Amino acid sequence: MNEVKVHAPATVANVVCGFDCLGFALSEPYDEILVRKINEPTIRITHLDDFGLPTDPKKNVVGVALQAMLDLINAGFGFEVEITKHIKPGSGIGSSSASSSGAVVAANHLLGDRFTKLELADFAMDGEKLASGERHADNVAPCIFGGFTLVRSTDPLDIVLLDFPPLFATVIHPQIEIKTSDARAILPKDVPLKDAIRQWSNLGSLVAALAKGDCDLISRSMEDLIVEPVRKSLIPEFDEVKSASLEAGALGGGISGSGPSIFMLSGTPEIAQKIAEAMSAVYGNTGIEFNIHVSQIESEGVRILMDN
Amino acid sequence: MNEVKVHAPATVANVVCGFDCLGFALSEPYDEILVRKINEPTIRITHLDDFGLPTDPKKNVVGVALQAMLDLINAGFGFEVEITKHIKPGSGIGSSSASSSGAVVAANHLLGDRFTKLELADFAMDGEKLASGERHADNVAPCIFGGFTLVRSTDPLDIVLLDFPPLFATVIHPQIEIKTSDARAILPKDVPLKDAIRQWSNLGSLVAALAKGDCDLISRSMEDLIVEPVRKSLIPEFDEVKSASLEAGALGGGISGSGPSIFMLSGTPEIAQKIAEAMSAVYGNTGIEFNIHVSQIESEGVRILMDN
Repeated sequence: MNEVKVHAPATVANVVCGFDCLGFALSEPYDEILVRKINEPTIRITHLDDFGLPTDPKKNVVGVALQAMLDLINAGFGFEVEITKHIKPGSGIGSSSASSSGAVVAANHLLGDRFTKLELADFAMDGEKLASGERHADNVAPCIFGGFTLVRSTDPLDIVLLDFPPLFATVIHPQIEIKTSDARAILPKDVPLKDAIRQWSNLGSLVAALAKGDCDLISRSMEDLIVEPVRKSLIPEFDEVKSASLEAGALGGGISGSGPSIFMLSGTPEIAQKIAEAMSAVYGNTGIEFNIHVSQIESEGVRILMDN
Repeated sequence: MNEVKVHAPATVANVVCGFDCLGFALSEPYDEILVRKINEPTIRITHLDDFGLPTDPKKNVVGVALQAMLDLINAGFGFEVEITKHIKPGSGIGSSSASSSGAVVAANHLLGDRFTKLELADFAMDGEKLASGERHADNVAPCIFGGFTLVRSTDPLDIVLLDFPPLFATVIHPQIEIKTSDARAILPKDVPLKDAIRQWSNLGSLVAALAKGDCDLISRSMEDLIVEPVRKSLIPEFDEVKSASLEAGALGGGISGSGPSIFMLSGTPEIAQKIAEAMSAVYGNTGIEFNIHVSQIESEGVRILMDN
């Protein structure tokens, strides 16, 4: 086997009350990444899209993640990578982690699947560090494992796969830029204990509700007292999108990652479509360009499309 | 039917990372409460134990909880109550809520089970308010419903019943007094966001681990960064009891309620017994009197022992 092509899903992190730990994978959009093993001990990156991302492997999340893997095994060989991104960089639905997660899964397959998914997530987190300055696993975990994941700890890395019922997501991506540094600077350093208690009660309840498939309880538990109230100011019409979506039948939702995308969960594809229309009606009046993805929750993570 | 006797279990609240929301019921110890319907619109309380608790219904948690029920239905009748407590008041394993929860379940049975368990929990919370100044449901919920419960919200009351594997608890009750006001005053008003995140990641993980029956993950998730570090100073030898218990095979544990009892969870009755011996060895050197309960997690809440 000399080359492997994978499909790497977009992901939603910071799921409402599960800030910095809870995420899920989307069936749409996704990236396609082809990795070839080459004899030279180097990494070559080509982009088959128009996003103008760096090709220098030290400045590209794929390069950094693959280098972490090559370094660990003292490899005398290298990789050639062709990336076809469909997930827009900066959208807040795990664009960087789809690239790095997809690349390490493909490379691992070329190496006879010698690493576990947990180890692969660890490599991909080096890519996240390049992208955001932090070795976080909120997007990498659902991207590699699929479904809903909870990152209990990043050091040591501990990822919990959650049970969940069939669910659908509607994501609107307003074409504005939110700098990660701004989204981070706006967070409080300390929070009132009583708000933290309410947040963890909601998260515990949400995890139980997902396992039970109890949509009413999922809906009641999707409340964020801590992050959404401060970050929503960075996203025009956030409250209007949310209330129109709830009116259209959404179970709940919030900011995807650190924005600017907003996601809403629902129990049927029909409701997910109605939410898309409601979001579109709100954003149609703003003059801000946007696109909307209607998707199911993808239970599979990065998957092999082709190897030869 | 004129009289009903119930069995009301002790409970552990504030389960490690689930401060103020997560609790479970114990098979030992328990209270027995007999309620008789009487024609006079009054509440009469008799104690068949030596704890010297008040018999004035306005000053007794049972009286207050039953009065809330009588008031709601504009009852023209009353109740006579005989309480046999085996759960020591002030032990931190839900003594007051066993009394109030047991009494309202018994009274409800006399009234043809007209109220739901959630409504009964609401009445019993009036008893908790008398005992602690707060309408909390952390003990009332597992006492009435049994098993592991999560109180998502107290207003409106929202109680989530969790799935869990067979588990055992060892509880040591050092015979010292901790004033609720002291236990509360020592809590921080604000907590670092990063600690709150770690706490809710652990709680989400613990709920998932209980549902999966994954004892390793239960163990890894039982970490409390916020309350235990400050409250453990109120309990002599807390660290020693905890480390001896973990060495004896405990999955984890912490302060029960606001103390002074310490609980440890384990996967088998044999380990639970070994933990009891380890705890006993630590406390044997302190000169402080103590007793120890070895128990399974009780999946049933308050239950009817007799009606006629």
